Amino acid sequence: MPHRELLDPQGKTVGNNLKNLEIHSVEDVRIGKFIELTLGAKSEEEAREKVEKACKKLLANLIMEQYEYELKEV
Amino acid sequence: MPHRELLDPQGKTVGNNLKNLEIHSVEDVRIGKFIELTLGAKSEEEAREKVEKACKKLLANLIMEQYEYELKEV
Repeated sequence: MPHRELLDPQGKTVGNNLKNLEIHSVEDVRIGKFIELTLGAKSEEEAREKVEKACKKLLANLIMEQYEYELKEV
Repeated sequence: MPHRELLDPQGKTVGNNLKNLEIHSVEDVRIGKFIELTLGAKSEEEAREKVEKACKKLLANLIMEQYEYELKEV
């Protein structure tokens, strides 16, 4: 998700368009990415390390975005 | 999120790039949007109606994507 302090022009546009659809009282819209990663790992620890590395090195732009994740066994 | 049956070229590219970062055993990557909507409503029922309408009419492309949402009081 974009940091709270930053403008989110895409969210702003969507917010304005919701008004045109008669959906009122929308106070804020913020748009980020949702990424589903299916990966193999020997332990929860290893999975967490891989996901952290993927987020920091590729998936999130840490200057503009924050990230959070959830591990789920499948 | 893009439907399971559809190719997700953006996810595919990210998957390939993870290999270059020495993150192995990645089986699948799928990329969708995460939207945070802050809105006023008199009841949970009204909030749900608004969110459903927003998803169906604007936020999701139902031909290519599926959506799910969670309501949270703030």
